[in-house]
Amino acid sequence: MSSSALSETRYRNPVPTVDLIIRVPEGIVLIERKNEPHGFALPGGFVDEGESVEQAAIREAKEETSLDVRLEELFYVYSDPARDPRKHTISIVFLASARGKPLAGDDAKSVLVVSEESIASGNFGTADATDTLVFDHHRILQDYSRYRKEGHRPLHI
Amino acid sequence: MSSSALSETRYRNPVPTVDLIIRVPEGIVLIERKNEPHGFALPGGFVDEGESVEQAAIREAKEETSLDVRLEELFYVYSDPARDPRKHTISIVFLASARGKPLAGDDAKSVLVVSEESIASGNFGTADATDTLVFDHHRILQDYSRYRKEGHRPLHI
Repeated sequence: MSSSALSETRYRNPVPTVDLIIRVPEGIVLIERKNEPHGFALPGGFVDEGESVEQAAIREAKEETSLDVRLEELFYVYSDPARDPRKHTISIVFLASARGKPLAGDDAKSVLVVSEESIASGNFGTADATDTLVFDHHRILQDYSRYRKEGHRPLHI
Repeated sequence: MSSSALSETRYRNPVPTVDLIIRVPEGIVLIERKNEPHGFALPGGFVDEGESVEQAAIREAKEETSLDVRLEELFYVYSDPARDPRKHTISIVFLASARGKPLAGDDAKSVLVVSEESIASGNFGTADATDTLVFDHHRILQDYSRYRKEGHRPLHI
């Protein structure tokens, strides 16, 4: 490896993404991913240069679920280098709400609404979704469930 | 511009950074920047590939202020494309606390501790610091002051 390749490596940064925990009247919206890694996930995607993270969250929610979401609050930022098998990504997670029926679009093969109770119990009621939440989205939903029950925001140190 | 350059542009992402609002017994720690853009700033810097944002925050605080900080909570994520004159950066801001005396290190020319009261009033008591807070750090401190007074976290939509 040349020294220029080394110095390039030294200044590499993780890539920012956004994910959303979208509350609809029936529960929380998950999508079934069309692309690798396959499985269920929170709606979300990469932040483009030139857009804010809030704009990225609203755009990704619309593209993947057809919902016009209202952002409620920033939840937490997930950045474990091992959280994404493809490369080091950072996920900025927002809590959001929406009315209407989610419809799969863009990178989503299907959408699923799981009840808040099933998330709290760790059993989503659908074997597929429970077993195949990708990335660290199971951990994010566990943190969310704890936040709803106890009011404590996550802090991963 | 070639089409490959265009397609490269299309998938560019903003670069993640961390900043800290560090509470010490006397107030909040600011640094005077050694590099462009010159002025005062919250301690912080780029997140390296392979480290979490929490690790980056603790590392940057140590490098710039010599303080061993305790992270208290995630505050907000600032991502206005115009917030940094160099390129589109995203700042993940943590609230932290520390004991001991801050000492300038690394990219910091000097350190300054400003009282919480002076931040609340918008007058830091030092003409230099008030006039030359770089990036959107004045806005971050305004949001922080509002949070301390009213308990509302920022949400920029």
